[in-house]
Amino acid sequence: MDFKPTNMKVDFNEFLSSSAKCMKPSAIRALLSVVNQPGVISFAGGFPNPETFPIEDLKTIMMEVLEEEGAKALQYGGTDGNWALREELAKRYVNEGLDIDKDNIIITTASQQAIDLTAKVLLDPGDIVICGLPSYLGALQAFSTYQAKLVGAEKDEELEAVVRAMCLAGKKPKFIYAIPDFQNPTGITMTLEQRQYLVRIARKYDILILEDSPYKEIRFEGEHLPYLYSMAPERTIMLGTFSKTFAPGFRLGWIVAPKEFIHQINLAKQSADLCSPTFDQFVAARYLKKGLFEKNLVGTVEMYRKKRDLMLKSLEEYMPEGVTWTKPDGGLFLLVKLPEWYDARDLFEVALQKNVAFVIGEAFFCDGSGKNTFRVNYSFMDDESIIEGVKRLASAIEDFMRK
Amino acid sequence: MDFKPTNMKVDFNEFLSSSAKCMKPSAIRALLSVVNQPGVISFAGGFPNPETFPIEDLKTIMMEVLEEEGAKALQYGGTDGNWALREELAKRYVNEGLDIDKDNIIITTASQQAIDLTAKVLLDPGDIVICGLPSYLGALQAFSTYQAKLVGAEKDEELEAVVRAMCLAGKKPKFIYAIPDFQNPTGITMTLEQRQYLVRIARKYDILILEDSPYKEIRFEGEHLPYLYSMAPERTIMLGTFSKTFAPGFRLGWIVAPKEFIHQINLAKQSADLCSPTFDQFVAARYLKKGLFEKNLVGTVEMYRKKRDLMLKSLEEYMPEGVTWTKPDGGLFLLVKLPEWYDARDLFEVALQKNVAFVIGEAFFCDGSGKNTFRVNYSFMDDESIIEGVKRLASAIEDFMRK
Repeated sequence: MDFKPTNMKVDFNEFLSSSAKCMKPSAIRALLSVVNQPGVISFAGGFPNPETFPIEDLKTIMMEVLEEEGAKALQYGGTDGNWALREELAKRYVNEGLDIDKDNIIITTASQQAIDLTAKVLLDPGDIVICGLPSYLGALQAFSTYQAKLVGAEKDEELEAVVRAMCLAGKKPKFIYAIPDFQNPTGITMTLEQRQYLVRIARKYDILILEDSPYKEIRFEGEHLPYLYSMAPERTIMLGTFSKTFAPGFRLGWIVAPKEFIHQINLAKQSADLCSPTFDQFVAARYLKKGLFEKNLVGTVEMYRKKRDLMLKSLEEYMPEGVTWTKPDGGLFLLVKLPEWYDARDLFEVALQKNVAFVIGEAFFCDGSGKNTFRVNYSFMDDESIIEGVKRLASAIEDFMRK
Repeated sequence: MDFKPTNMKVDFNEFLSSSAKCMKPSAIRALLSVVNQPGVISFAGGFPNPETFPIEDLKTIMMEVLEEEGAKALQYGGTDGNWALREELAKRYVNEGLDIDKDNIIITTASQQAIDLTAKVLLDPGDIVICGLPSYLGALQAFSTYQAKLVGAEKDEELEAVVRAMCLAGKKPKFIYAIPDFQNPTGITMTLEQRQYLVRIARKYDILILEDSPYKEIRFEGEHLPYLYSMAPERTIMLGTFSKTFAPGFRLGWIVAPKEFIHQINLAKQSADLCSPTFDQFVAARYLKKGLFEKNLVGTVEMYRKKRDLMLKSLEEYMPEGVTWTKPDGGLFLLVKLPEWYDARDLFEVALQKNVAFVIGEAFFCDGSGKNTFRVNYSFMDDESIIEGVKRLASAIEDFMRK
């Protein structure tokens, strides 16, 4: 064996891990450059409306933090996260009937990291994760980088059949990934009976539950339904975030789970990023403590309710026959369905020519189905653009269906 | 096979991935609770001195960001990071002679995430990483969670022997992990000849280089030596951070690498945390643009130089015979060596009784050696505490050696 100096060109593909080979660009992220072109009305992102950002309150709070505790807020923090912030979050959950305290909570660099760390701690290559059909793309991606196998269960009746079959095949699923409230991408909410059924199956087969809960506070009508965590606290890992109700730019989320599991996440987080942004946590803790979170939330929910109404009304008014859509009671999204033989991927090109954009639904279906669907966001755009965007979309679909 | 409801107790250990089983608590993080007790003089952390935090400048800048670009700074950002920040960072590197632009840079959630993502993208279980003896604990931990095998090379002559042997055994190392400037934990700097040798070996055997560079700007004396990146830009992945020179509480670091590799890291980061704190990036970009970073750095280097001098003088004055230590030209740390038959782990208990703390050196040696060493930080403590701390440490060592 002879070692000669190389020609100083490196092919990084030769060095990649098998995990890296499973990484695909997010359909959403990849779209953003196209979608952000001037003139395009984009229903593609999952962005909160910037008018909900409490800029004046933040000016006051940031000055206070720098003034009163700058030396701590700019320093390294504990891996578990800011004490006061976890205390405030725990209080809110206790008020909602959960039996937890601040040590059941670890702060993460937004809930995407919460998903990633949970996957890292639980998943070996080939492990099974049960997902909704459809389900949040960013979670599916994270599970894939740990080379998990994603198995979809579309209807409730399917869940037990799928889980039982997996168990009999010696591949007991590690966890069921669920977004019970106003899920991404459909905006649909699980009924109480559906929650009870999911918990029953998880217990019967001894499977964990990963409850992703970014939208629960954004309910427009109807009563809040119980967290899966409150129904099966022994096996549920619940994820929360400030990205939809405060400011995504702070990158703050959290995990609620049994303390034994929080400890394991803490170990994983030490080598992932040591701790989440300290300054942002100090700011968020004060924001909660002053009661500003609850106050601002009222306005956000009201704004998004109106935007949902406007979106539904516009769809009703302009969409051609044969097109259907979900009717969310909360959250940021709804899913539009074209007649079965149409592919939303082709529609995307036509829509872009008309300066309107969405996310193709297929990306959210781990089994490759959903080709005739696309996701629409109604939180980000101003009211005029919602109407105009739906008009353009309807016209694109008409052109597309005529072809 | 019969499925019965479980007794509603869950043993999370039964669900853990093989990666999770490789996660151990950081010797540093585990110490922090003990070490932060009132009255204890701690040389254990790697904290910058809070007096270096530019609080007044930050007040101005944060108001400007909220005022002028709040809607963007509080929103989701691109996965690659803030455009202006990457532009400013690229400018600094170009001034130092590097041939890069902003697209050779991706912002990470501090350099710990940069290490983690690099490991995720490159390492499969059983892959070899060559590390210094000793080397940065947080990196060793991150590599371990991807189940890499860490192989130490203590002396320069060893490096080629080790690499060649590994290659002949069919296990070509994936990369060499190096901290060329004022490395953690010794504070020692690689000479130009050592850098040239490392690059030669990396090229000869076609191995990547991971250059971790958190301390380079903190040089007290002597001339800056070239980045490994500038010597082998085709195969070097370089990591930078604001944690030692600006504010660790913002959690901002970055990777400089060939664009092909930056693209791969971008994919990994999408599912790890989508993007790093947007607001903090807007603040950092302005801080750099206004020239405040360079200005503040002068004061930081001056402060740490004095503290290093004081630490060395105090060690000289109080340490019993047989104890030696490194003499760093920059950075935040030095490594103390006890006579060979002593174990710093036992000394730690004695020291704690005297209200002084350090980090045992063993944790930094991937081969389990270094039992008679410990790391001392001189950036965080005030001057009086440095003197008093070294006195206590000397008295602890005397007690310990007498036993």
